[in-house]
Amino acid sequence: MTYHFSNRVPKSDVDPVGDILKVAGDPKVMSFAGGLPAPELFPVEQVKRAADTVFEQKGQAALQYGSSKGIPELRQVILDRVKVEGIETDADHVMFATGSQQSIDLTGKMFLDEGSVVIVEDPTYLTAVDVFRSYGARFVGVAMDEEGMKMDALELALQDNPEARLIYTIPTFQNPTGRTMTLSRRKRLLELAEKYDVMVLEDNPYGAIRWEGENLPSLKSMDKTGHVIYMGTLSKILAPGLRLGWVVAEPELIKKYTMMKQSADLHTDSLAQYIAAEYFAQNDINEHIAKITSLYHKREQIMMNAIDKYFPAGVTHSNPEGGMFLWVMVPGVNDTQVLFDAALARNVAIVPGDPFFGNETIPGTFRMNYSNTHEDKIEDGVKRLAEAIEEVMDKK
Amino acid sequence: MTYHFSNRVPKSDVDPVGDILKVAGDPKVMSFAGGLPAPELFPVEQVKRAADTVFEQKGQAALQYGSSKGIPELRQVILDRVKVEGIETDADHVMFATGSQQSIDLTGKMFLDEGSVVIVEDPTYLTAVDVFRSYGARFVGVAMDEEGMKMDALELALQDNPEARLIYTIPTFQNPTGRTMTLSRRKRLLELAEKYDVMVLEDNPYGAIRWEGENLPSLKSMDKTGHVIYMGTLSKILAPGLRLGWVVAEPELIKKYTMMKQSADLHTDSLAQYIAAEYFAQNDINEHIAKITSLYHKREQIMMNAIDKYFPAGVTHSNPEGGMFLWVMVPGVNDTQVLFDAALARNVAIVPGDPFFGNETIPGTFRMNYSNTHEDKIEDGVKRLAEAIEEVMDKK
Repeated sequence: MTYHFSNRVPKSDVDPVGDILKVAGDPKVMSFAGGLPAPELFPVEQVKRAADTVFEQKGQAALQYGSSKGIPELRQVILDRVKVEGIETDADHVMFATGSQQSIDLTGKMFLDEGSVVIVEDPTYLTAVDVFRSYGARFVGVAMDEEGMKMDALELALQDNPEARLIYTIPTFQNPTGRTMTLSRRKRLLELAEKYDVMVLEDNPYGAIRWEGENLPSLKSMDKTGHVIYMGTLSKILAPGLRLGWVVAEPELIKKYTMMKQSADLHTDSLAQYIAAEYFAQNDINEHIAKITSLYHKREQIMMNAIDKYFPAGVTHSNPEGGMFLWVMVPGVNDTQVLFDAALARNVAIVPGDPFFGNETIPGTFRMNYSNTHEDKIEDGVKRLAEAIEEVMDKK
Repeated sequence: MTYHFSNRVPKSDVDPVGDILKVAGDPKVMSFAGGLPAPELFPVEQVKRAADTVFEQKGQAALQYGSSKGIPELRQVILDRVKVEGIETDADHVMFATGSQQSIDLTGKMFLDEGSVVIVEDPTYLTAVDVFRSYGARFVGVAMDEEGMKMDALELALQDNPEARLIYTIPTFQNPTGRTMTLSRRKRLLELAEKYDVMVLEDNPYGAIRWEGENLPSLKSMDKTGHVIYMGTLSKILAPGLRLGWVVAEPELIKKYTMMKQSADLHTDSLAQYIAAEYFAQNDINEHIAKITSLYHKREQIMMNAIDKYFPAGVTHSNPEGGMFLWVMVPGVNDTQVLFDAALARNVAIVPGDPFFGNETIPGTFRMNYSNTHEDKIEDGVKRLAEAIEEVMDKK
């Protein structure tokens, strides 16, 4: 059999990030590479109780086919969640997807043709790059600093690419950098989106997990012209295994999303939706988020202290006020893989920066995750990573 | 805001089938239109027990991110299921998807470019038509009779379209016709797929629900050359709300499916997968399938008897040996919508045949579902439908 694949299928089976995560899964290896929530905080008992109620009260509905838009009970619940982000809306503006990843996928499918320009933060969420690329995207990366995407660089990108279809941004505790876009830049981004009439895809998986600084309004909450599509998820505040994400957009767009969703997988798991809705009815999600925030903050502080103590001079890093990631820049390194290899030789894993860039990469960068490593182990891992960095810097 | 949608987005928001199902959802209306399993047979108690075990024994894993390929426990379980279809394989040949719909979506994404030819049964599953069209498919329909796709017509289609990328078929209890492809045609289809080197997508959601005739081997079980991709699902034998489907294919293809799946939604709901695996461990699925088969058979017989009693002479229909659907052909009707309207005026809903065809339709055809209407109501519904048909036939 000769296979004739579409142009969307990557020619190579090489999956560098998959390979990294496989290596990082070795129990000998201390992994700062993944992006997993701390499983010890999953409210297993409470989810079980919610499931019991669902099976007792609406078992048949939870096992039957459902609406492509999602069950009304859960769309209703999510209106309270997005209020925290400053978004006042109604259930007609909300669709549930099989995790935020599907929201990104459907957005790519809806807005991109072969060669369409997507403007992304440099660096950005790597699986968004994969999925946009599969729909023919050409990427234009916009440089960032500690205040998020640089707005002069964004305007230049828009001037050079007036036909750009999407600006994809994770404004709060960005993946992979952990950086947060300032309020003034948020406002400027909206002005530019309006001026150049480009859709903005605002991805906010981490925003609720803040331990420092002030809550900033989401782009969507300040959007007066319908330019912003907002995506949220239960993956970081409840459980990623349930694959529950949502899109908030104009009803006209929700109609299109719902049609594309129907083609993609008919609808999101009914049982998971009912359980989540019941969990919200029975529990205070804010109490649970406070627990997550407190633990991740503790782990982040330990990581930061160890970095300050052990990392060689000249190495810089972001200073996240929440979320799960931080971004490290090692000066004078041309091949980031060398850093990865040196770390792995000491049984520590990180994700080299390259796959996070739409086109040109910044060498010597990598992402570290702190949410999924026990606080007793972090310092030792950072110490060994510091030795690896030192070795590579010495060689240059 | 001006929206610039991709070419994949249908220009019109009109969703004829959605509109039909909405009308059919009116409690006054007796609906033979949908395609829902009988919810009173969902094993709610047993699924609850399985869920309890999962929460007690592996709650954290069930709420955490998982592998794009699916959990090994469930892939292992499914090997026994596909053995019933004559497929002897191993877990490396299996990937789990968010329902069969996603298996179809990923197949379209992997194999179709703008203008690629997909050969389909005429008529065929309408949401497959939607999804293949969204990836640029051009359809070539192959006529059917009561023995399934006509093989001389298939060979002509292959000769005319040597670059065809896919043959999509539902060989057993087809949707929408309820027809089953004979063994000799199955063998011929495989010969043709091999001769013209075209992939076959074998969709088998209904195969287990057989009350008459002999089990026929799946195409995949007779495929010696890797031309067949097989898709199964738990939607019709356990619960569609869980969105659990699987693909069986060569490991080389499973690798590509897994990459596409990762872009689409990272992975299938972990909790649903663990619950399903535990359900299979605790229960005999064959006993449950026997219950489903017995009830659907009863309903189908009542429908068939009523059709024989009330439908006007000249109206023909398929004779399903299992599954959920039958197909009716009313002679001399040019506009099937008239039939639908006449039935709805008597508070009965069916699905007019048109959307099931890739290109040219056969007027006067419609699909009836019997799995989701209580046996006490079927005869009355068929009687009213017969009156509607009579009215339309008289007018012609």
